[in-house]
Amino acid sequence: MTNTTETSSEYQRAFGQKLARLRKVRGWSQEQLALESGLARSYLGGVERGQRNIALLNICRLAETLGVPPSELLNFTD
Amino acid sequence: MTNTTETSSEYQRAFGQKLARLRKVRGWSQEQLALESGLARSYLGGVERGQRNIALLNICRLAETLGVPPSELLNFTD
Repeated sequence: MTNTTETSSEYQRAFGQKLARLRKVRGWSQEQLALESGLARSYLGGVERGQRNIALLNICRLAETLGVPPSELLNFTD
Repeated sequence: MTNTTETSSEYQRAFGQKLARLRKVRGWSQEQLALESGLARSYLGGVERGQRNIALLNICRLAETLGVPPSELLNFTD
């Protein structure tokens, strides 16, 4: 184990904050991201609030929609 | 949509290959990665074969076990 271990909910929260940042930089609403990605707005709301354990294929779908590499969505350092 | 769209199974396959590469660089067996991460060896086998839609918390758990940032596991460019 490393000393950078985060709790589960911290990762979900970090992902949600990252997603919301990338969305807002583009001036998009959650509704718009939902329409562009084909994912439900209520689902995206849960993801952004850190309440969802989003899986690989939806992570990659959101990355494609936002025009970033999948790895960027898991880059929590900025 | 971008012109870099990959099919679902391609992402799962890319992830599996990346995970296997990081594991083998460390000289670990699947069994050893299973023991270190607390995930089942059979599950990890399915992930490495691209058969599993692994979710965020398990991605981050594997990243911690391997000592890399979560984003590295989604960096499929190498």
